[in-house]
Amino acid sequence: MRGLYIGRFQPFHLGHQAVLERIALEADEIIVGIGSAQASHTTSNPFTAGERLAMISGALRKLGKWFYIIPLPDLERNAVWVAHVRSMLPPFDLVYSSNPLVIQLFSEAGIEVRKPPLFRREVYSGTAIREMMMAGDDWRALVPPGVVSVIEEVGGVERLRNISQGDRPF
Amino acid sequence: MRGLYIGRFQPFHLGHQAVLERIALEADEIIVGIGSAQASHTTSNPFTAGERLAMISGALRKLGKWFYIIPLPDLERNAVWVAHVRSMLPPFDLVYSSNPLVIQLFSEAGIEVRKPPLFRREVYSGTAIREMMMAGDDWRALVPPGVVSVIEEVGGVERLRNISQGDRPF
Amino acid sequence: MRGLYIGRFQPFHLGHQAVLERIALEADEIIVGIGSAQASHTTSNPFTAGERLAMISGALRKLGKWFYIIPLPDLERNAVWVAHVRSMLPPFDLVYSSNPLVIQLFSEAGIEVRKPPLFRREVYSGTAIREMMMAGDDWRALVPPGVVSVIEEVGGVERLRNISQGDRPF
Amino acid sequence: MRGLYIGRFQPFHLGHQAVLERIALEADEIIVGIGSAQASHTTSNPFTAGERLAMISGALRKLGKWFYIIPLPDLERNAVWVAHVRSMLPPFDLVYSSNPLVIQLFSEAGIEVRKPPLFRREVYSGTAIREMMMAGDDWRALVPPGVVSVIEEVGGVERLRNISQGDRPF
Amino acid sequence: MRGLYIGRFQPFHLGHQAVLERIALEADEIIVGIGSAQASHTTSNPFTAGERLAMISGALRKLGKWFYIIPLPDLERNAVWVAHVRSMLPPFDLVYSSNPLVIQLFSEAGIEVRKPPLFRREVYSGTAIREMMMAGDDWRALVPPGVVSVIEEVGGVERLRNISQGDRPF
Amino acid sequence: MRGLYIGRFQPFHLGHQAVLERIALEADEIIVGIGSAQASHTTSNPFTAGERLAMISGALRKLGKWFYIIPLPDLERNAVWVAHVRSMLPPFDLVYSSNPLVIQLFSEAGIEVRKPPLFRREVYSGTAIREMMMAGDDWRALVPPGVVSVIEEVGGVERLRNISQGDRPF
Repeated sequence: MRGLYIGRFQPFHLGHQAVLERIALEADEIIVGIGSAQASHTTSNPFTAGERLAMISGALRKLGKWFYIIPLPDLERNAVWVAHVRSMLPPFDLVYSSNPLVIQLFSEAGIEVRKPPLFRREVYSGTAIREMMMAGDDWRALVPPGVVSVIEEVGGVERLRNISQGDRPF
Repeated sequence: MRGLYIGRFQPFHLGHQAVLERIALEADEIIVGIGSAQASHTTSNPFTAGERLAMISGALRKLGKWFYIIPLPDLERNAVWVAHVRSMLPPFDLVYSSNPLVIQLFSEAGIEVRKPPLFRREVYSGTAIREMMMAGDDWRALVPPGVVSVIEEVGGVERLRNISQGDRPF
Repeated sequence: MRGLYIGRFQPFHLGHQAVLERIALEADEIIVGIGSAQASHTTSNPFTAGERLAMISGALRKLGKWFYIIPLPDLERNAVWVAHVRSMLPPFDLVYSSNPLVIQLFSEAGIEVRKPPLFRREVYSGTAIREMMMAGDDWRALVPPGVVSVIEEVGGVERLRNISQGDRPF
Repeated sequence: MRGLYIGRFQPFHLGHQAVLERIALEADEIIVGIGSAQASHTTSNPFTAGERLAMISGALRKLGKWFYIIPLPDLERNAVWVAHVRSMLPPFDLVYSSNPLVIQLFSEAGIEVRKPPLFRREVYSGTAIREMMMAGDDWRALVPPGVVSVIEEVGGVERLRNISQGDRPF
Repeated sequence: MRGLYIGRFQPFHLGHQAVLERIALEADEIIVGIGSAQASHTTSNPFTAGERLAMISGALRKLGKWFYIIPLPDLERNAVWVAHVRSMLPPFDLVYSSNPLVIQLFSEAGIEVRKPPLFRREVYSGTAIREMMMAGDDWRALVPPGVVSVIEEVGGVERLRNISQGDRPF
Repeated sequence: MRGLYIGRFQPFHLGHQAVLERIALEADEIIVGIGSAQASHTTSNPFTAGERLAMISGALRKLGKWFYIIPLPDLERNAVWVAHVRSMLPPFDLVYSSNPLVIQLFSEAGIEVRKPPLFRREVYSGTAIREMMMAGDDWRALVPPGVVSVIEEVGGVERLRNISQGDRPF
C-alpha cells in the first residue's frame, strides 16, 4: 500500500515525524507532498521547497521504507487541485491529512483520506515554532536534529526575523 | 439592447433574481458574467463556476429573454480587466453592477454602468447566506428552488462547513 | 441528456452547424465549449472568444433547444484539462468531438465521447476557410449568414490578412 | 556606480524624492524599479505602472543623472525574485531599499543593500497619503507638483475613493 | 508629442538606430518598448531584457531627447495586449512599428500607428545578425559600438552558438 | 557529493540508466530532475510527471544510493530557470546534462556541469522510442522491464498513437 502525506512543513517538526512513523506502520511506501512549494521567504512560508525537502529526507531515511518527497506548487484553482496532484505523483492508495480543504477535495474525488492523530498539537505546530523563532525562544527541541542543521545552514531564523518586519516585496 | 450583469453568485439568490427581472424590463438580451470563475471550495467562493452556472440558468429561462452565462476567470491585473471581459463576451451596451471596482473600471473605459437597486440587501446577500449555511440556519427561503437542488446535489452545505475549518490547501 | 460539443470555431461554419443539428436529435440540452478561448489575432485563431460566441449563438437559437456557450481558456496542463472543463460547465452526459486529444483525455477520465460524422470535411474546415479569406476567395457560402455579419462587423478578413504577414507581437 | 532604488510609489512623494537626491550624491546612474507593476485600482495600489512612471520621471530629470525607470511585475515566487529583477535591468552595483523582504532577498544573493535614511516617515508615507486622499484631506503638499498633475489628470483621488468601497472585482 | 517604438531588439542594430533618429525628428519624447521581455537564451531571443536595455540606452542618449526604455513581457492574450502596454507606459500619442500584429492591435484600439521606413532591411535585421553570430561571420559592423561591448561582456556570441544546438530546456 | 541529473524521460530508457549508473560511481547521492513536469499527452511529452517518476524509481532503487526524484515544471523564463531549480531541490554539487540550454544556463550561473557520455544514442533516444511506439515497432528492449510495466498499465502506447493524430486540444 502506498500512502500520501501532504503538508507545508514550515518547518518539519516532531509532530510531523510522529505522523510519518504512524503511516510507516500501515504503508509499504510513503509519498510526502510538500504543499505551497512555490512559496518561501514569507512569515508563514519562510523556507523554500528545497530546504523543506532537505529537512524531511533525514526523517524518512530512518523509517526504512521506500519514499518519495515531491514539491507541489499551488495551482490557485481548487477544482483541479486533485487532478494536478495525481498527475505529479506515482499512484497512491490512501491520503493522510488533517487539513480540512485537502480532506474535502480528495473526498469529493472519491479518494480515501485518513486523519492522522495529531501528536501534541498545542506544542508541535509550525505556527508556534515560527513564532518561537521570531521571539527568540528555543525552538530546537521541537524539531529533529537534522532540521536544526538545515535551518542554521541557511540562516533560517535570521531570515524569518528580518522578513517578519514586512514580507511583501514593497 | 444587450445588458451585462456581473456578480460572483456565491450562491445565486433572490436578490440577484430581482435584479435580473429588473434588467429584463430594459434589455432585449442578457449576459450574466460569473466573476472569479476560477475560484471554488473556499469560504467566500464555495461553488465552482459550473455549479453557479447551473444555479443561474433556471432563473434566466423564466425571464423569456435570450441570455448568455459566461464564466469570467480573474486576471489579477485590474488595468486590463475590461479588455479581458470584452474579449470573452458578445458586444454589450450597458453594464449592471453594484460592485465599486467594476463600476470604476468600466467607467474609466467609457462604458455606461447602471447600479441596480439592491433588493433587501440586509437579507439577500451571499455573505449572509453562506454564514447561515455554516451556522446550520435555514437559508433555503433566500434562494430560488432550483438553487436549493443544485446545492443539495453537490453537498454544498457540508462542503462549506468542512472547509470553513480551514480553506487553504495546507 | 446534456451533450457537450467542443471546438475552436475559427470560424463557426456549416460543418459545425450540421454536427449541432445531429447532436440536437439526441440531446435535450447542448453545451458548446469554445476552446482556446484566450487566443485571438493569430492566423490559426483570428477571432476572439466573444466574436466566436456571437457567431455560434445564432445557429443554436434555431435548434429549439436549451443551450450554453462557454469559453474555455487553455490551461497548458493536459493532465488537469478535463477537471478544468468540468469545473466550468454544468454537468454533462456525453462529449462530441473529433479532436484526437480531446477524445483521449475524456476517455482516460472515463467519460463517453462520440465522434460526430464530419460533414464534407474537405470543404467545411476552419483551416480551409481561413486560407480562402487570406487568398481573397469567396468563403461566404461555407458559413451561416449570421457568421458573415459578425466577421464583416469586426473587419475579420482584413484582420486575418494583416496578421498573416506576421502574427507574433514583434 | 549604478544604484537601484526599488519601491511601489503609490504615489511617489517627497520622501522618495529626498532618497533619490541622496542616491544621486553617490551614484553616477540611477535605476528606479517600480514594484508590483501589475497592480492598480486597489486601495493599496491605486495607480498603474505607467501612471507611477509618469510621476517619477519629473523628479528624476531634475537630478541631472542618467536614469532608468523600470516596471517590475511581481512573480509570486520570492526564491527567484532577485534573478527576475536582474534579468530585467541593466547591471547595478548597489541596491537602496528599506523594505525588509527586498533587503533579505538581495542579501541572500550576495548583493549589497543600503537602507536610505527615511525622510520624516511619519509624514511622508504612501499609506498616509492614500488615507488623506480617501478622507478628503489635503495631500498635495506631500508630493512634488508634477505628481499632483498626474494624479489629477487620471482622476486618481476619485478612483481611490470609489474603489475604497470595495476593491475586489466582485 | 510622445512616440512609442516597439521591437524585440535581438540585438539592437543600426537599422533600429536609423528608425530612432527618424522618430527623434518628429517626437519630443521617445518610449522604447522591449517586446518579449521575459524571453532570453533562445536562438531567436538570445538576450535578456536587461541586456537589450543596456544596448539601447547608449543610442538613445545620443539623440538628445527625453526617453524611456520599458520591458514589455508577453501576456499570451492578444485581445488585451494594447491595454497591457498602455498600463505599463506613460501616455503616448503615436506608435511606430513595422510589425503586422502590433499595427493591427493598435489600429483596432483606435491608436495611430506609423510604419517607419526600414533602413536597408536586407542587411540590418536581427535574424540575419544572429545567423552571422552563429556562423562565425563578422556582425560587428551592423550594430553600434556600444552594442558590441554589451554582447562581448555577457559572452553573447558563445551563448547563442551553444544554445543553437538545442534551446529547449530538455 | 550530490549530483543532479536532469532530463525529460519521455520515456526513461536504458541510455538514461547507463548514465545513472555512471553518476552512481561518482556521487554519494543522486537527484533526478524531471523536466517539463507540467507536460503530458503530447507526442513529444506523452507521459505525466507521476508516470515518469514511477518509471525512474525502479532504476534508482537498484543503484544502492540515496536519491530524490523531483518534478520540475517549466517557468517559461530562461533567465530565472536556475534559481527556480535550486529553490526546488536540496543543495547539489554537480550537474549532469547533455542538453545545450541546461549546460549554458548552469554555466552562466557558475555551476559545474558534466556532459555524461551518451550510451548508444542512435538506439537509446526518447524520440526514437516514441516513433517506434507510434509505428507499432518493438520498443520494449530499449527500456528497463519496470518501465514496460508502467507504460502498459497506463495504456501509454495507445495514448501516444491516438494523440499523434492531433495533440492540440482543438
